[in-house]
Parts: sequence; C-alpha cells; structure tokens
Amino acid sequence: MTIRNQEQALGSPGTAMLDLVSRLYPICRSITGDGVRETLEILSEWIPLEVHEVPTGTEVFDWSVPREWNIREAWIEDPHGERVVDFADHNLHVVGYSVPVREKMPLEKLRPHLHSLPDKPGVIPYRTSYYKETWGFCLPHETLQSLEDGTYEVCIDSTLEAGSLTYGECLLPGESPEEVLISCHVCHPSLANDNLSGMAVAAFLARRLQAGPHRLSYRFLFIPGTIGSITWLALNEARASDIVHGLVLTCLGDPGPMTYKRSRRGDALVDRAASHVLADSGAEDRVIDFFPYGYDERQYCSPGFNLPVGCLMRSQHGTFPEYHTSADNVDFLDRDALEDSLRNTWRILQVLERNAVYLNRNPKCEPALGKRGLYGETGGMRRGEFDELALLWVLNQSDGEHDLLSIAERAGVKFETIAAAAGALAEAGLLGPAGNR
Amino acid sequence: MTIRNQEQALGSPGTAMLDLVSRLYPICRSITGDGVRETLEILSEWIPLEVHEVPTGTEVFDWSVPREWNIREAWIEDPHGERVVDFADHNLHVVGYSVPVREKMPLEKLRPHLHSLPDKPGVIPYRTSYYKETWGFCLPHETLQSLEDGTYEVCIDSTLEAGSLTYGECLLPGESPEEVLISCHVCHPSLANDNLSGMAVAAFLARRLQAGPHRLSYRFLFIPGTIGSITWLALNEARASDIVHGLVLTCLGDPGPMTYKRSRRGDALVDRAASHVLADSGAEDRVIDFFPYGYDERQYCSPGFNLPVGCLMRSQHGTFPEYHTSADNVDFLDRDALEDSLRNTWRILQVLERNAVYLNRNPKCEPALGKRGLYGETGGMRRGEFDELALLWVLNQSDGEHDLLSIAERAGVKFETIAAAAGALAEAGLLGPAGNR
Amino acid sequence: MTIRNQEQALGSPGTAMLDLVSRLYPICRSITGDGVRETLEILSEWIPLEVHEVPTGTEVFDWSVPREWNIREAWIEDPHGERVVDFADHNLHVVGYSVPVREKMPLEKLRPHLHSLPDKPGVIPYRTSYYKETWGFCLPHETLQSLEDGTYEVCIDSTLEAGSLTYGECLLPGESPEEVLISCHVCHPSLANDNLSGMAVAAFLARRLQAGPHRLSYRFLFIPGTIGSITWLALNEARASDIVHGLVLTCLGDPGPMTYKRSRRGDALVDRAASHVLADSGAEDRVIDFFPYGYDERQYCSPGFNLPVGCLMRSQHGTFPEYHTSADNVDFLDRDALEDSLRNTWRILQVLERNAVYLNRNPKCEPALGKRGLYGETGGMRRGEFDELALLWVLNQSDGEHDLLSIAERAGVKFETIAAAAGALAEAGLLGPAGNR
Repeated sequence: MTIRNQEQALGSPGTAMLDLVSRLYPICRSITGDGVRETLEILSEWIPLEVHEVPTGTEVFDWSVPREWNIREAWIEDPHGERVVDFADHNLHVVGYSVPVREKMPLEKLRPHLHSLPDKPGVIPYRTSYYKETWGFCLPHETLQSLEDGTYEVCIDSTLEAGSLTYGECLLPGESPEEVLISCHVCHPSLANDNLSGMAVAAFLARRLQAGPHRLSYRFLFIPGTIGSITWLALNEARASDIVHGLVLTCLGDPGPMTYKRSRRGDALVDRAASHVLADSGAEDRVIDFFPYGYDERQYCSPGFNLPVGCLMRSQHGTFPEYHTSADNVDFLDRDALEDSLRNTWRILQVLERNAVYLNRNPKCEPALGKRGLYGETGGMRRGEFDELALLWVLNQSDGEHDLLSIAERAGVKFETIAAAAGALAEAGLLGPAGNR
Repeated sequence: MTIRNQEQALGSPGTAMLDLVSRLYPICRSITGDGVRETLEILSEWIPLEVHEVPTGTEVFDWSVPREWNIREAWIEDPHGERVVDFADHNLHVVGYSVPVREKMPLEKLRPHLHSLPDKPGVIPYRTSYYKETWGFCLPHETLQSLEDGTYEVCIDSTLEAGSLTYGECLLPGESPEEVLISCHVCHPSLANDNLSGMAVAAFLARRLQAGPHRLSYRFLFIPGTIGSITWLALNEARASDIVHGLVLTCLGDPGPMTYKRSRRGDALVDRAASHVLADSGAEDRVIDFFPYGYDERQYCSPGFNLPVGCLMRSQHGTFPEYHTSADNVDFLDRDALEDSLRNTWRILQVLERNAVYLNRNPKCEPALGKRGLYGETGGMRRGEFDELALLWVLNQSDGEHDLLSIAERAGVKFETIAAAAGALAEAGLLGPAGNR
Repeated sequence: MTIRNQEQALGSPGTAMLDLVSRLYPICRSITGDGVRETLEILSEWIPLEVHEVPTGTEVFDWSVPREWNIREAWIEDPHGERVVDFADHNLHVVGYSVPVREKMPLEKLRPHLHSLPDKPGVIPYRTSYYKETWGFCLPHETLQSLEDGTYEVCIDSTLEAGSLTYGECLLPGESPEEVLISCHVCHPSLANDNLSGMAVAAFLARRLQAGPHRLSYRFLFIPGTIGSITWLALNEARASDIVHGLVLTCLGDPGPMTYKRSRRGDALVDRAASHVLADSGAEDRVIDFFPYGYDERQYCSPGFNLPVGCLMRSQHGTFPEYHTSADNVDFLDRDALEDSLRNTWRILQVLERNAVYLNRNPKCEPALGKRGLYGETGGMRRGEFDELALLWVLNQSDGEHDLLSIAERAGVKFETIAAAAGALAEAGLLGPAGNR
C-alpha cells in the first residue's frame, strides 16, 4: 500500500474524488463486514488509516456491537427458472443484514419479503433490518408488477455470526491537543452521494491538511452510522472532551447548494464559521437548526456529550428524489459540486485554525498607521478603502472580547480579510495575543 | 341549592353556557349590591362558591370599600306623563351608582344627565359613576332627539349606604399548593360578552376540573372589576405568592378569534402556554403585549405583585362595536365561540398541569429504542416518522434545562405530542424527574 | 467681543445659523493655523469659548502635534503669464499642508501635483497631505484639460513651522458633574455642510443651554478632526470618565433626512435617545450601527475609551455628491434643515436631561387616581384616553428597573408625554426617586 502522490490529490481534486467514489461504489458495505474492510483499504491508499476491529458483543452504552454480516450471493428465480432479481447485478437488491434463506415458495408467500417504491417504479430502494432477524429483496416496482404467479426459488447466501465492527481512524496531530472531529459514515452499499461523497471529501481534506502545518489536531472517523459513532464514543469517552469543533460530512456531491445543520449548541464556533463561509458562498438560507435526526451528529450532540459538531451537506437527506435508491449512483454526482464542497469545508477549517482574540496594544485613540506604512498618505479619503477599514475594525474591536470571526461578521467582510489585517497589525506590534477561541 | 348534574355540563357545554348567560343577563349588577349576590347564587348551582361580604369602609391599599348601591325603580316621564325611559325595560338605562332623585325639571336642566351615543343612535350606552356622586340616564340617541321641550319628571329610587362588597371564591385544591388563579369580573349589568361569557367559561372550567384529579390547585374569583381584585389582594396578600399562573377571563363569547394579552412579565409559563395553544389554533398574531389598561390583570400585574396573570379574550374590549352598549346582548354571543373558548382555556391549563423538566437517564448517545418497542424496526426510514422524532426530541433536550413546552416549541409540534412522548419514555425508565416548572 | 443678544439666537435660529455659516465660509482652515483662530474668534461672539494652544511636538498618545501651517498666497501662471489657478479665488485650490514652492516647470512635471475629479469636471476637489511633505493644487477637471503645453510658474507662499494646534472649548456646568460631550471638527476650509453646519448647530445649542438651568454639564469642543480629538483625550484623560453621553455633530445642513450613527456600545442612553427622537421624526431607518470610520467618534469610541458618543448627521459623509468638493458651499445648505437639526439635537438632549428611574410609592395595585384629580370621573371609558394611559404606564413600570425612555418605548408614545406624566405623579407623591440614568 502506497500513499498516492500528493500532486494528484491537490491538482484536480474534483476528478480525483470522483475516481475514488467510482472505485468504492460497487462494494457491498453494511454496518459490519468485509465491505467496510475493503473500503478502508482503498482509503488507506490516500491517507494513513488506523483500522479498528471491535468484537461482536462489546457493550457500548445502551447498545452492544452486533454480529458481523457477510454475503456472497442472493437471487430469486421465477417459475421458469429465470433469475428475476440478482445481488450480482446490484447490491441494493438484498435487504441489509438479511438472514440466509434457500427455499421454494409461491409468490404470495414471497411477496411480504419484496420491497419496491410504487411512486418511483424504475429504481431499487435501499432497506436494512439490523435489529430484527428477517430477510428480503428490493427491486424496481415495475419488476415486481411483472412477476407472474407460481413457485419461486429464493437464495440468500449470507452469514450473521460473531465477528467485529470495523472502522477507520486518522489522527493528524497539530500544535494544540484540541481536536477537530471529521466524521463520515461508511455503512451504505452502492449509494454515491450518501455517503461515498462524504468519504471522498474527508479523505481529500486529510491529504490537504497533511501537506502543511496546522494549529489544531484533526481526527477523521470513517465509521458505520449510529452504532459506529456510539462505539467510538463509548470506547473513547475520555477523549471526547478534546473535541472542540466537529463536522459530520455527508451528501456532498449532488448539484444542490450547500446546507449546514447547526450543532445542538447552535452558537458554537463551528456553527458561526460554517454560517459565515456559506453566507459568503451565497447559500445563507441553507443554515438550519439542529434536530435530533439525520446522521451521527445525533450521537455527538446527545445531551451527555453535547459536542460542538454540525453536519455539512449539499442537499439534505430525504429531500432529493434519488435518496436511498439505486438512482443515487456515480452519474448523480457532480465533479464541480464535490470540488466546491471540498473548498467550503477547507474554508471552514481555516476559520477554526486562524480565529483568535487579540488585544489592541494601543487602545487609546487610533494609532498612527501612516508612520508604520499601514495607511494611505493623502487625506480626504472616502469610506470604501477596504483594507484600511479592515485594519480599523480589528483595532477598534480587539479589546479581548471579540474574536476575529465576530469582527468579520460585524464589519460585513470575509474572515480572510480580517485575519489578514490582524496579521499585518500583529507584525507591526499593534496587536498582541489574548488567547485563541 | 343543588349542584346540577355533571353530564349536562360536560355534554354540550356551548348550549349549557349559553343557557347560564341567558339566565344571568337580566340581573342588574354593579360593583356592590344585590345583583351580585343573586348572580353568585345562580353560579352556586354549578360550582361550590364561598361568598364573601367585605364591609363598606374597609381599607384596601389606597382605596376603601365603597357604600353599597341598590336600585328598585327609575324612570323619566315626559310633559305628557308618558314614561320615555324606564329602568324596568333595560337596566343600562340608569348610570350605575346614581344617587336617588325625584324631581320635576325642564328639559334643559335634565339634559346634562342624559347620555347617548350619536354615532350609534339605536343603542343604550353603559355608564357608571362610582366615585363622584351624581345621577343620570342612558338612552338611545334617537330617543334623546325625539324629546320635546317641557317639564319632565325623573325618579331614581336607589340607595347608597353602608353595606358590603360581595364576591365569590372557589378553591379546588390539587396535589400541589401552587395555585392557578382564574379571575372574572361580575360587576357589569346586562352585558353578555363583557362579562357573562367569562363567568360562564370560568364556571364550566371549574366543573371540568372537579371531574378529575389535578396537580395544581385552582382558585376561581368572581369579583367586581378593579375594586374587587384590589380588595381580594389586600385581604389575601400573603396568599398571592402561591399564585404561579393566572388568567383573567373576559369577552369569550363573540365570534372573533381568540386574543391573549401577556402578563407584565411577558415570558411567564402561562404566557408561553397560551401563545403555544393559540398559535396552534391559528390565532397566533392575536398574542399581544401587556399594557396597564383593560381588566383586573392591571391589579394582579401591578409592580408590587407582578403576578404571572394574562388575559384571555376573543375580541378585545373596545374593538367591537357592541362593546359597552345594549347591543352586547345574548344574541351577540356565539355558542361555538363559547365552546372554542372553553376548549382553548382547558388546553392552556393542561400545559400548565403537564409541563415538566425531565432528565434523560441515558444521556450518552441515543438509547436503543428498538429493544424497548419504541422504534420502527426497518432501517432506511425518512424524517417524518413523527412519533419517533418526538421521542428523539425529548431525549435530546431533557438535560434538566428544557421544559416540555420549550421542547415542543423547538420541535415545532403540539405540546400534547411531546408530553405523550415524554410519558412513554418515563414509563420505559429512560426519563426521570428533574422538577416541575 | 460681545455676546450677541439671545433673542436673535432663539428667534429665528435657521437664518442666524445660515448667517454664521456664511461668515465662516471664506476662511481657510486646516488642522492648525490662523484660520482656526479666526474661526474660534467669530464663534466667541456667540458663546463663551476658551481657546487652547498646544505646542508643536507635544506627544499625544501614538501621535505628536504637527507643525503649524499657514498660507498667504498660491497660484499657477500659464505660459502666457495668466493665473489659471489662484488660491485667492478659492481656498480649496491648494492641497492642505502644501510645503512652499516657487518654480517654473513644464506641464508634464507639474501634472502629478494637480488633482481633479474626472467624473465631476466642474468642481474643485478637497485634498490634504498632513503627514507627507508635498505640495499640490486642486482644480476643476475641465480647467485641467484646457491647459496647453509649455512652461508654468507655480507659487505657494506657505509656512510649515513650529507653532501650535488650536482648539476651542466651552464648558457649561450643570447641577451634576456628569458631562455631555458635543464635538465638531473645525479643520475644513471652505466646505459648508462638512462642517460649518455642525459648528453652527453646536454654537446655537450652547446658547440655548445657557438660557436656562440644566441638570447635566455640557462640554463643547471645536477641534481639528482626528489629531484634535486625540490631543484633547491625551491632555484630558482623567476627565473622559465624566463623559456619560456624547454627540459628534457634522453635515447637519443638507436637505436629506437625519441620520444617527450609534456609539460603539450600541445601546448607550444616547443611542436609545437618538433612535427614539429620530423614529418620532419619521427617519427611523437612518439609525445605523457604529463603524470605525467617519469623524471623531472614531477616537472617542476607541476601545481604550469606549465612550458613549454617537454621531448625528443628515446625509452621511461620502453619500452626497457635493461631499469634499467646492459644491459643498453655502448654497447647498437648507435653512429649514439646519433648524430641524437643531430641534432634533435639542430633543435628544432633553431626553438625556429628563430621563430617570422612578419608584412607584404605591406599588400594590393601582392608586386611586380619582381622589387626586388625576383620573376621569365617569366609568366605562375606552382605551385611548391618552394621558391616563401614560399615568398608568409610568405607575406600572416604575419598579426601579425601567427608566422613562424605556417606558416610552414600551408604551409606544413620545418621551415628552411619559416625562410629563411622571412629573404629575411625582407631584402627587405617588412616585419617588430611584436615581437618574
């Protein structure tokens, strides 16, 4: 296993992320099993991943790690012996965690095991049954309707036995032990936006962070949804307090505008940073309040942890018609959207990295900027000389109470501009540190 | 005196309330006197009322209980000896608290004692003069204009002498000594919406509360406006601190939508509960801020008490043309409106009864709802499965800081739904008490 | 020097202010020099001014007082010996603080010293160069374009040498040592709105304050912009803490509606008072947030002082086309606008003077207003009896927490009405003092 060269990752990340998604797409993932292992192995070509195996039966808070599920083949043969549904064609055809079955039965007995979407007759739905032992097939409604009466043979060659839950972790230590958590779920089979897109953006973020120094530490988790985050939190409870910011990444490849779902706290720095970056990108009205449904932010934001973890998406789960169907495939993804998602996520992380509270060392009246080469030299200037106004905002607000992001918000300018102004003032000795936030 | 059977009260409360109003309508009430006593006696057929008599001259804060006023007959005879105005026809014809008079006088001398509404020429206005000794008659403007010159004979056979101020009180003790105050004024003569409607709704609320157990204690006051609430507060100053919620009920029978006027505090639980219930009933924009005018909330919300008492109405006093005229009669009332008022008031009381702060006993990550029969069993579900989302909201927010009403508000669902979800979770041992609010 | 008679000042202040502006207009002012002295001498005819001289080189925080600049003549002669630009025609023709020059040079060498506005070809721009030694002329763009090639003679007979910075101060002591700061800049040459208008309004405010008693003390500063306020703050640092409210006055004569720029605090009493007065005058949407650019509020609101000083204007600097050009002349000013500015500023000061927190001495229930002659005597009144409602608002809110301005805001009525009601209640012994705010 070699780490692919960095130029490729940074050069055209949209294409590279789309290639990664295409390669991961055919693999049959679930909350446990070999599909997750294969996925993490491919991700390891890009970033250094530590792969954890947590044995079946391990108690994790109110839950226990389930048995491991693996599947080799599954099909339905019609009365003429023709395979009308075949797992080999599409892994969504089998209800996740189906118990093994090999049996002949009339259509009416088979029927309750068949799932389709009458309102979307051409696509295969996605169904799982993790905690109730059953089996089933998913198929296009038009296929279901074409089935004639008679005796069908069904085969699901799966195993559900003691094994482990597998997840990947990548810690990139920074100057500070304070951590940013980036979490994405790796339990969905052939579904591209949900959530191969999140995995691809997370992997490319990690590569970019590795390319240079960073103040904060970053912990990337590639975990099965719900049970994976519960497992990680249960096994790493003491570490959770190091997490000062976090993002769940999902549905980042569709052509819709960005959406940010706030953490339960609502006003954490990550919430403010994401709102600022998205407002700037013209998607302001897609910042939504926390609600206790969705992805692993449900666990990170449970009241016993209440971590400042939001969820970054483009289209929200359940709001695009391709969601949880075979239509959520590689063709549904947009290269530019993936690249835009990466860029916005990066900008959010940069706010977290660079935000700080400064103290104006010359707080009584404005300092003479001219003699330090920081001010235009001809009087009678108008408002609108942008950089000078940024300098004045930073000086005026740096009383130890306002961080750079709040100054940017009050001034109505980009964080980057305010941060650059603060840098120049600090260099000139006019600003001193008052602690990071 | 017998308590009427309960079925009648609960069976068709709109009709029953309208019957009660019709029976009380002809009685000549004022802030003191036999009309109030007769009114309380009729109310006693429905609910257990303790009738208090406070002697004339009793000092009550900055005021003293006035002399008692009673009236037997009153009329004006025109120059031909015809009775052009007669108290026997309508008790609004006499200015309340008129001193006795029996005199012949020319029209020009009588004129200053005659009150009419030029812009509503067909109705009799309502006038009183409690604190300045005078006498007067009220009549339709068209009658006034038809009076010819000449000598008129006027008679008011009233008495204004030492007696007492009468009010009714009904305390329904609950598990808790904390009290809900329900107050309505009983001092208006033949005026139906203002305030026989409030008296009827209060009486039927009390009956309904008697029909089952309740956590809170309820104190119903049937009192003359202003001087009555001042008297009660002065004589019961120590008890006022037990009042944790309160409603003044008035103008609850007209066909307009509900209005809630907040307490002086503005954010008391009764304010939030009423806003929630009214928003739900489609009258959201009729929640108005407190102002120091209106009914007895003026006294309950005076700064020395500042009780959390709001005022529940349909049309606000002064905003409907029938207000304080003979047009505010039984025909003006709407049976369905009375019933809707009772239903909404009841729902507000239910929020007060059931609101509580819980503690999630399993605060770290979500509990496994499935193994407790509280969750759907097939994965891949979408947002919209309402009851599960309510369970998740209650679990997520029950950190000891949020009461059920605030959870309902944040979740955007009915209080009843959130309270039901909390009940199920408490039964499953997942929620514990953190105190009531 | 005599103080002009007061009647003139109070009788027709618009005309009188316009006369004062006209007299001051031709004087060539700068941040130092004889023009400022002459200006202060004329103002001394109206109000008692203490004139201060601060020597060149005095250290004032991060700055030092610059050399004094004076100018006698300046002109450009074209190749034919004709004066194409002459300081004697308009003092904007010379860049402020130009060093002396007397030289012949070809047009191409002169060109970089010539400033014009291509988009406003008929007007002379205003330029200064206080902190970089250079010289220059300002002229209409159409004049610049008409210049033919050849040798030009230029003359600037100025001096830039050790001297002093001059400013005027007028302290009007009140009952309280708490001060209201009224500050305006006196450094602009022939520019009428910016800022002869501010000087005129300040002078007439001072006259009006002298005409009667006032609770607060008032400090008027007539100072050069930026370096003047920095100098005053540096030399009077200990006095700054006495400043409890303040206004920078500028651009108060143009025909646009009033604008108020909040202090850095945003919710200081002066901010609330100005918002209330302007809302009342129909200019509510012109209350804008603080930003660290503009006039001397930049210094007063620097974080080391953070004084509650806002800025009152009509049109904002930079938003009217005449700004900083020869078009900002006496004709641009509007007599009624000047008078309206004076009236609104006066009303703001009256809120500061009269605002107070009272205690209701009869806080339990309403007092009996009738027996004190403060209430209408016939019952059945409707909301709308304005004065009684004002009395009830003051009584209800006077719990020691709410000042009169907040009561006016909550009641939605003019401050003057609430203050009058409070006065009547205090006279009746129903209100007592709880301290001023």
